[in-house]
Amino acid sequence: MNMEATIPDWQELVARKRNECREKIPKEWILSTEHLNASPNPIDYDVPRRSGLLSELELDITENYTATQLLRKLAVGNVSSLDVTTAFCKRAAIAQQLTSCLTETAFPEALKRARFLDAYLEREKKPIGPLHGLPISLKDSFCIEGLQSTVGYVSFLNNAPETKSSALVAMLLDLGAVLYVKTNIPQTMMTGDSENNIFGRTLNPHNTALTAGGSSGGEGALVGFRGSIIGVGTDIAGSIRIPALCCGVYGFKPTVDRIPFGGQVSGAKQGLPGLKPAAGPLAHSVSDLQLFMKTILKNGQAWKYDPTAFGAPWVDGQRSPDAHHGNLTIGVLSEDKHFPLHPPIKRALDLAIERLTRAGHRIVRIESQSEELSVAYASRLAFQYFIYGPEEDHIKPSGEPLVASVAKFSAPMFTGPFPVDQSLDIVQKISELHYAHLRVCDSWRQVWVDHHLDVLLTPGSQNTAVAHDTYGWPPYTLMWNLVDYPACIIPFGKASKELDPEPMGTGDEVQPDYNPEEVDGAPCAIQVVAPRFQDETCLWAADIIDRDIRG
Amino acid sequence: MNMEATIPDWQELVARKRNECREKIPKEWILSTEHLNASPNPIDYDVPRRSGLLSELELDITENYTATQLLRKLAVGNVSSLDVTTAFCKRAAIAQQLTSCLTETAFPEALKRARFLDAYLEREKKPIGPLHGLPISLKDSFCIEGLQSTVGYVSFLNNAPETKSSALVAMLLDLGAVLYVKTNIPQTMMTGDSENNIFGRTLNPHNTALTAGGSSGGEGALVGFRGSIIGVGTDIAGSIRIPALCCGVYGFKPTVDRIPFGGQVSGAKQGLPGLKPAAGPLAHSVSDLQLFMKTILKNGQAWKYDPTAFGAPWVDGQRSPDAHHGNLTIGVLSEDKHFPLHPPIKRALDLAIERLTRAGHRIVRIESQSEELSVAYASRLAFQYFIYGPEEDHIKPSGEPLVASVAKFSAPMFTGPFPVDQSLDIVQKISELHYAHLRVCDSWRQVWVDHHLDVLLTPGSQNTAVAHDTYGWPPYTLMWNLVDYPACIIPFGKASKELDPEPMGTGDEVQPDYNPEEVDGAPCAIQVVAPRFQDETCLWAADIIDRDIRG
Repeated sequence: MNMEATIPDWQELVARKRNECREKIPKEWILSTEHLNASPNPIDYDVPRRSGLLSELELDITENYTATQLLRKLAVGNVSSLDVTTAFCKRAAIAQQLTSCLTETAFPEALKRARFLDAYLEREKKPIGPLHGLPISLKDSFCIEGLQSTVGYVSFLNNAPETKSSALVAMLLDLGAVLYVKTNIPQTMMTGDSENNIFGRTLNPHNTALTAGGSSGGEGALVGFRGSIIGVGTDIAGSIRIPALCCGVYGFKPTVDRIPFGGQVSGAKQGLPGLKPAAGPLAHSVSDLQLFMKTILKNGQAWKYDPTAFGAPWVDGQRSPDAHHGNLTIGVLSEDKHFPLHPPIKRALDLAIERLTRAGHRIVRIESQSEELSVAYASRLAFQYFIYGPEEDHIKPSGEPLVASVAKFSAPMFTGPFPVDQSLDIVQKISELHYAHLRVCDSWRQVWVDHHLDVLLTPGSQNTAVAHDTYGWPPYTLMWNLVDYPACIIPFGKASKELDPEPMGTGDEVQPDYNPEEVDGAPCAIQVVAPRFQDETCLWAADIIDRDIRG
Repeated sequence: MNMEATIPDWQELVARKRNECREKIPKEWILSTEHLNASPNPIDYDVPRRSGLLSELELDITENYTATQLLRKLAVGNVSSLDVTTAFCKRAAIAQQLTSCLTETAFPEALKRARFLDAYLEREKKPIGPLHGLPISLKDSFCIEGLQSTVGYVSFLNNAPETKSSALVAMLLDLGAVLYVKTNIPQTMMTGDSENNIFGRTLNPHNTALTAGGSSGGEGALVGFRGSIIGVGTDIAGSIRIPALCCGVYGFKPTVDRIPFGGQVSGAKQGLPGLKPAAGPLAHSVSDLQLFMKTILKNGQAWKYDPTAFGAPWVDGQRSPDAHHGNLTIGVLSEDKHFPLHPPIKRALDLAIERLTRAGHRIVRIESQSEELSVAYASRLAFQYFIYGPEEDHIKPSGEPLVASVAKFSAPMFTGPFPVDQSLDIVQKISELHYAHLRVCDSWRQVWVDHHLDVLLTPGSQNTAVAHDTYGWPPYTLMWNLVDYPACIIPFGKASKELDPEPMGTGDEVQPDYNPEEVDGAPCAIQVVAPRFQDETCLWAADIIDRDIRG
């Protein structure tokens, strides 16, 4: 196979796919060039209203309700699923034109289903299920019967449309949801920049010069633009939380396998020990994250769809036994010297701590002395897991090139040595990694016990959304994948060149520097973490924290 | 190292250990030769009463209550922990002399703790925890601070006494339990005969010519003899359930990691993909199995002791959503042609089905057409997992010989080929095993969904307890380890040479033949199975089934 033969081939495949995707957007939802290029911040510029493409009702539906509120209206016919679905389809189509956040669309199918659900409600006088009529968006890795799942690999463009939906997709449909779009991801799904050679690069709707994060970057941008009320991503190193914090929305990485993960498309070899990805929601409030978790896990039915899902039901009202009188004991993880916080992130975290203290919560600073508690060590251990096995190359077969963020390849190895001898044979290495991993898990367990913590408060990242292809290594999210703790991103404040005028270098070649001009106005965030399986406690505390940091 | 040098060494080590163990039994609890050899069935012969070693109160305590009832009495001082502990210590000492069911004993320490707990109750007017004052026995693999954990390896005799208790042990102590004995296991912990060169061979208290099962055989014999009211075993292929069904007691293998497993001693390399063992209880009733599970998992505190334990709490009152009016939908797994049931087992199962039908439950025969649902295929897949990795040899270093059941080595490979190409390199093999495993899990999920099952009723084994070193391969228990489904053994009926006078050959060299004379009077059992994580449903249904099969 020579380059001359393959390159036209992959480019032709991509051109055909892009054209198909473009033609699936109704002509009347196409933005004029004026609105398309009007502002680098299409959210603040308010393209949906200015473009005139959305009616007052559609603007109201997409902007003024939580999912819980919409579902209540849908359940009694106070609003039709057709109106809600139309509104989100239109807004998603606009988001796509501005940020390239979508991969597959299914607008006609979604509207047809909405009509079916409206008729069902009228006939049966009751909703079909707890998600009756609500549009929900999905990361491209989820399979929907009839749509392709390329996850950004050109070589997957030859795959037929899916004949079987992923477990979660089947479940969402049985619960009454409407599926209308899948969303963009990076080539390999392992970078913080959602760019691939099929669907292009997802832009941040707050500032198109910045990354939307990855790998669920399309979800981040779409939800951030309110083109979706609840989106579903997956997270093995921060892939739900990074787009959430980049795009100023709420994101929740549950404990692995609580939300059924089975039946997705992936380029990774499965079954080898290591970190596992978790599926979870991005949304506009903690209560909508809770709504998603509760609805999927209610009555513990997930096992009926996916043998890898934990059957344990959502335990409503689960509280940390150490929490008294609504006051929390909140640990705060110190900044890691290898990953110093950019000033806007530090300011957001400090302000949150100040207000939480004022609200009466107990703050415990975790001064991590032991290596096992450091995000730098955890990063190196996780990295060793990521690279120990053989990889299947889905890029070369098509002849497509690496995208910039994949070619750049960031790694945490500037912070110290490999935790386990790299020269060990694979079986010995798996075993040694296991014991190293166990020591990290046990150290965090001990922290929680020693300090009687309810939750831990940490930054979600060193930085806000940064210029494309500069995001770097994600230690503050990855830590919680390594120990499989549920973690929730809460958007809080914005970067400001006035408040933090001094640039800051990180002193390494991997992590982004702070550039006040570049990130001015980018969303900031904090992260709330609870022990494994305490997803209920994590979101319960996140809700309290979200309220109390607003001052 | 030559044989002349090593053999005297290991024998000397063993002699010293055996002497130590013997001397730890108080002189006044030693049986006379008359009672020691009076009957091959020391339960029916009633050695505890005839020997005169137990007072009327001690006989009453050990024979006439459930753990729940004893705990109620202990909590209000209606009976002292000293009396309860003394009673079970004495009875365990007798069981040890008759069946070699114990490894380490801690009688003085247990009595001291009982006195402490009695004083606590008197002073504080409340129990110290939900297990206040109750003696609980543990398989030798659990570490108790101050005691050795040799798990039957002579080479481990050089290890110092443990300085840290296993997670579950720490938890039991915090909950108020009294720990008094650890129990015997097979060399390697991977056979159905609990024999090793340190502690000898555990005999079945119903018939000392038969195996007590393994690997938690000491627990089976001890609980069967009522020398323990609740014992804790571990199970990776049937190691809780086989001793339970051999010794006529109730045994429960929970979903892996619901009961904290961490901090045990094992000879196996950890961290490689494959089947994982689960810790769980053996007891005298379903309600005592429930008591154990509920108490450990209440409030989801297990994570505080063990980072590998699932934090999910026990969900009291969890019911299968398909169960109406207390009637169950019960699947019945057909006999596998490679593993035909011995007549007494078949009779017990048929009688159970007849009575369950009469009680109004719906019985669904699962005619397993697909290979993925057959216990023979599952056995071969599990076996391939057991042998794919390198093993650490803890036997050779001491010079001790293999015991007979280990030397004999039973395998399921007479039933068909390896599911995955044995010649693949280890990484490829791990991945292929993963997909094969997933197909089995998904097939069982589908069975449950298609038939709206609450639980499955299956035999626990082909046979009852059989002559020593003939137990064979355990397909009917192992199936549920492979898919990690909770499974409960319910003792039901006894083998009878009158009712089933015809011998039956199995036609292979691995599995035991049916010999009516040999196993006459041996306990029979059935097994109740629920999907992964539905431990609550499994025991709830087991309780109903246990009631309704009594006719």
